[in-house]
Amino acid sequence: MKKFMDENFLLQTKTAEVLFHEHAKNMPLFDYHCHLIPSQIAENKRFTTITDAWLGGDHYKWRQMRSNGVPEELITGNADPYDKFVAWAGTMENLIGNPLYHWTHLELQRYFGINDVFNVKNAKKIYDEANEKFATDPDLNVYGIFKKFNVYAVGTTDDPADPLDQHILIREAGKCPAKVIPSYRPDKALHIEKPDFAEYIAKLSKVVGYPLNTAEDVAKALLERLDFFKSLGCCASDHALVTCPHTFLPINEVNAIFQKKMNGDALTETEIDGYMTYILTVLAKAYNKLGIAMQLHFASIRDNNHVMFRKLGPDTGYDASHDKELVEGTSIFFGALSETDEVPKTIFYSLNPKDYYPLTTLMGCYQGGIPGKMQLGSAWWFCDHYDGMTEQIRVLASLGVLSRFVGMLTDSRSFLSYSRHEYFRRILCNIIGNWVEDGQLPADMEVLGRIVEDICFNNAQKYFEG
Amino acid sequence: MKKFMDENFLLQTKTAEVLFHEHAKNMPLFDYHCHLIPSQIAENKRFTTITDAWLGGDHYKWRQMRSNGVPEELITGNADPYDKFVAWAGTMENLIGNPLYHWTHLELQRYFGINDVFNVKNAKKIYDEANEKFATDPDLNVYGIFKKFNVYAVGTTDDPADPLDQHILIREAGKCPAKVIPSYRPDKALHIEKPDFAEYIAKLSKVVGYPLNTAEDVAKALLERLDFFKSLGCCASDHALVTCPHTFLPINEVNAIFQKKMNGDALTETEIDGYMTYILTVLAKAYNKLGIAMQLHFASIRDNNHVMFRKLGPDTGYDASHDKELVEGTSIFFGALSETDEVPKTIFYSLNPKDYYPLTTLMGCYQGGIPGKMQLGSAWWFCDHYDGMTEQIRVLASLGVLSRFVGMLTDSRSFLSYSRHEYFRRILCNIIGNWVEDGQLPADMEVLGRIVEDICFNNAQKYFEG
Amino acid sequence: MKKFMDENFLLQTKTAEVLFHEHAKNMPLFDYHCHLIPSQIAENKRFTTITDAWLGGDHYKWRQMRSNGVPEELITGNADPYDKFVAWAGTMENLIGNPLYHWTHLELQRYFGINDVFNVKNAKKIYDEANEKFATDPDLNVYGIFKKFNVYAVGTTDDPADPLDQHILIREAGKCPAKVIPSYRPDKALHIEKPDFAEYIAKLSKVVGYPLNTAEDVAKALLERLDFFKSLGCCASDHALVTCPHTFLPINEVNAIFQKKMNGDALTETEIDGYMTYILTVLAKAYNKLGIAMQLHFASIRDNNHVMFRKLGPDTGYDASHDKELVEGTSIFFGALSETDEVPKTIFYSLNPKDYYPLTTLMGCYQGGIPGKMQLGSAWWFCDHYDGMTEQIRVLASLGVLSRFVGMLTDSRSFLSYSRHEYFRRILCNIIGNWVEDGQLPADMEVLGRIVEDICFNNAQKYFEG
Repeated sequence: MKKFMDENFLLQTKTAEVLFHEHAKNMPLFDYHCHLIPSQIAENKRFTTITDAWLGGDHYKWRQMRSNGVPEELITGNADPYDKFVAWAGTMENLIGNPLYHWTHLELQRYFGINDVFNVKNAKKIYDEANEKFATDPDLNVYGIFKKFNVYAVGTTDDPADPLDQHILIREAGKCPAKVIPSYRPDKALHIEKPDFAEYIAKLSKVVGYPLNTAEDVAKALLERLDFFKSLGCCASDHALVTCPHTFLPINEVNAIFQKKMNGDALTETEIDGYMTYILTVLAKAYNKLGIAMQLHFASIRDNNHVMFRKLGPDTGYDASHDKELVEGTSIFFGALSETDEVPKTIFYSLNPKDYYPLTTLMGCYQGGIPGKMQLGSAWWFCDHYDGMTEQIRVLASLGVLSRFVGMLTDSRSFLSYSRHEYFRRILCNIIGNWVEDGQLPADMEVLGRIVEDICFNNAQKYFEG
Repeated sequence: MKKFMDENFLLQTKTAEVLFHEHAKNMPLFDYHCHLIPSQIAENKRFTTITDAWLGGDHYKWRQMRSNGVPEELITGNADPYDKFVAWAGTMENLIGNPLYHWTHLELQRYFGINDVFNVKNAKKIYDEANEKFATDPDLNVYGIFKKFNVYAVGTTDDPADPLDQHILIREAGKCPAKVIPSYRPDKALHIEKPDFAEYIAKLSKVVGYPLNTAEDVAKALLERLDFFKSLGCCASDHALVTCPHTFLPINEVNAIFQKKMNGDALTETEIDGYMTYILTVLAKAYNKLGIAMQLHFASIRDNNHVMFRKLGPDTGYDASHDKELVEGTSIFFGALSETDEVPKTIFYSLNPKDYYPLTTLMGCYQGGIPGKMQLGSAWWFCDHYDGMTEQIRVLASLGVLSRFVGMLTDSRSFLSYSRHEYFRRILCNIIGNWVEDGQLPADMEVLGRIVEDICFNNAQKYFEG
Repeated sequence: MKKFMDENFLLQTKTAEVLFHEHAKNMPLFDYHCHLIPSQIAENKRFTTITDAWLGGDHYKWRQMRSNGVPEELITGNADPYDKFVAWAGTMENLIGNPLYHWTHLELQRYFGINDVFNVKNAKKIYDEANEKFATDPDLNVYGIFKKFNVYAVGTTDDPADPLDQHILIREAGKCPAKVIPSYRPDKALHIEKPDFAEYIAKLSKVVGYPLNTAEDVAKALLERLDFFKSLGCCASDHALVTCPHTFLPINEVNAIFQKKMNGDALTETEIDGYMTYILTVLAKAYNKLGIAMQLHFASIRDNNHVMFRKLGPDTGYDASHDKELVEGTSIFFGALSETDEVPKTIFYSLNPKDYYPLTTLMGCYQGGIPGKMQLGSAWWFCDHYDGMTEQIRVLASLGVLSRFVGMLTDSRSFLSYSRHEYFRRILCNIIGNWVEDGQLPADMEVLGRIVEDICFNNAQKYFEG
């Protein structure tokens, strides 16, 4: 029996151990897609308590606490921080097989040097130890964490209307040990179906300094902002989409749709898709020209609990995996881009593993030029767990070129998530190790070590900065 | 090499053995969803032959016999019972990897004490031995079986128009060692698209004693019957649905749809969905008020073979897994319930594992209040096998709180199916055992033993009776 | 650690070794669905170089070379053959976990006796050795390969308008060691939506010698050609379909649709489906009468890259897995055939594993008469890899009768693909071996050996020729 989460955690073979300890472990970390708040980086924020760090905004944990029957008061309410912490400890005991079980223990081990099993019995001890660390460890701030985890770069998620003032501050201060790169996420300019669309357009108009009277004006403004993002190192964009827009309309019709929305009229599904297709096409071609990677996050269905949405707002644990047909529209959209050879570097993510086969085979149709131009993104959100990562890695290997994979990202709001890269690396090394020990791959540690290092870091660096 | 189906069947590690033999094996059994016939329980029925018991009504076996090329005469026809038995034995040899292979041998071992491998060669011997047992073993009747398998309760499946006279008889006789609980299955009142709908409404009207002239009248009658079911211990309802209804119409329109149907006119898809949404909403809110769990069985496509349907009727082995989009409608329906905080305890089942991710993540959006309020039901029907159970358990663990799972049910018409609970328990213990031995879980046998016992029995008891 | 791809490659247990070496390995090979070119068989073609043999037309390899960033010049362009070979070697190193890694090494071992690991370092050595073999080995022609791999029969893929002159030549020459059987693939007569439909109808008209003025005429012509195919041993047909047609229209409407298309007018989706349903129904009933197996290949989405399609045409590596709902239409189509008990022997394939559950359970609804009348086809194209085959075999075992499976086919244009049967056989034996060693199956090597031999060859022979 292997010991619980020791140094060879998840490494089932000698080959896996060598790959992890000699190749994966010490590679820098390019966290190319996350939701860190730039101002917290600029101020080199310190956390005050473990409750704040763990439960302040983590809807992954909130969901499981609710599933475990914990009252909302102890989750997002005003209960005492220690009581919340104990409620979380009580939930943890029940989370066998859940990624939070491993993530939580990895965080305890790597950030706090605590190797205990976390449960109700030793909740008090761990609470005190972790808070003591927060109070005393000089490196438990953002820059200390970046250094400790060898973070080479983080890609934050930013709105086109954002002045990126915090990014400029960080650059000018020159103190942050990791590159902090803005990523371009124009969801609010694309999602014309949302009630606050007109309000957002007004905001964007203010930023660019001229009126946005047509869809073409919006596109122009977005391209200007993209150039500005690019000037600050932006190398990736990001789009949250249920499915891929694919309704190509004449520009005068697109402008009319925009006008209709701005007049407060309701739009049809086709009109919404027509507008989105236009904007996304303009952007995709610009991404291609500028060498910016386009990240598409498909298949979420959001805010499914109405009463809780009204209480807590979005991103509070009430989202789910969608299950719509995805491939035909995506083929039409990328087919159109392929007409003029303007498919940008693209990373497909889906919140539903049923999309892995269609997406991975479809992306094979637009490969070429650079290694791994089209990517199946790392297992995302609800898929981001042991079985889910294993599935994503094995499907990618079976259908594409795993060795060119740009690898892991945290997608996280928390500075305590970097140990998830370690989790991914262990799973990756273990899969390859099992292939070798089963005689499915030659035990050429030079080649395999190179591949592991590439997936852990080099591929991402070349892909985003090369 | 492990011996074939010995006491450590499916237990690949020492930890799994301990979890099964010291925790799972002796837990009582709450078979909360089955299709036992109440009158057979009331009369404490004895079977006469193994052919009758095994092949009299089991469409699982019929399907595989057909797949194996056995003539229908030997399946549902008038062939000699022994010839049918031999045809089944000949099929069994070919069923490697099929759950029937394990179920059949478990039944031979546990019900008849026969440890032979079942095949054509020893079909005669086994036939004679099993029939001898039926003739002589005083405990091979319903109550003997309930006692032997430590059956705490069974939840039968009953129509709202059912007088539940057999349930009353069983209660009053006071001899049945297991609780026999009616479950409320109003499919006939919901499925307005069916040709026999009007006929059913007439029957329901007779039972409640007043005319049902509107959809509101139907709802009123259903609620009355639900109260009556509740008075006899009912703690679960059940609905067979392809997808989740989600068309909310004004009540006068719903009444008009009902009227239209009763006049013999054809309904549109939207009208059908509108009526079903109305009735299911009324019921869901009542379930919530009464603490009754709502079971939703999604994604079957039935009676696909027309000629055989005319010969044999429904439930004779001609159904399949459906593959429709499921999540949007389900989100709309439960979203509406969430508006007024009236989501009942709910168990989602799907006949297609592609729905596990969407359903498990969606159910996370309505958790809260009690532990495991929303459940991903145990692998159902075509999914009910080694790989299917493993998938259901692992998806649930990865996306939710496995420890709060209400566990196994037989969904069976047969009194010989209780060994399937053992099958499930072995798989469960083995998965947990593998996690422990791989260092993914601490070897805390107190916690894990408690979790196993909960999933085997305690969770279900609390969920349905708590 | 097992050695890389030695004689026990993929065989993880002693039982698997015995099953493979004593039962699977020496069975003949019925490659019932492939894309070999009959004229190459008739002339007993020899290849000239390994680049030609490997990279001349293999879009599987082309896709991965593109994914690895190889310039198109080195893939389908006019680059030097050796440079192309080296580009392929460089890609191979990166293909860990991809089936091409195993297929390529199996081909080197079995066809050329080369046991080296293939990579850039020894590309020159392998290039020279393989080309030397091509130049000197008298058996590296079609008949030599058929003999070496114990090929009992191959089923080519032929258009109804094809005169089958090459098949006749092969028969008359009497020198080919394998049966060469035409398979009937009337895609061009079904796909009325294609721009070249009218042109094809003209061609077909010429072949039958009378005008095709109605859909009924087309059906008549197709049936005539089917009889002709049958007279040359045809035992299987094949259809490429996105989903299953299921729009039943009166014959006069079908004829009107045909007329409309021949007049150059555009058709609606319903019209297209109506015509296809008519033709496929006529054919299915004829297949049933003639004992010809109907192969349905579902769920591909083709030619997704427009610019590359214009350059290279179809089948050049730009196809993907589709993700449409499949089961309802398939149920309607087969339901209609079941009305008159005219469901033919059918093999379902899907390019998307999400269809395995619906298809395997649906096919169970039409079983009967002969063993394994309805088949879930071997993992196809993008699914044809270690994990994909494992999934297909395990789903089939869990839901149906694995023992009646007709097993592997290459679906290949290459004479170097026969080692893929070995790959399949090793995976099959390993799965069964693991069941035995885990105590899930009795170690009855007589029964299991028979089952393995059946799946490797006997089932297919009986199914197609019995």
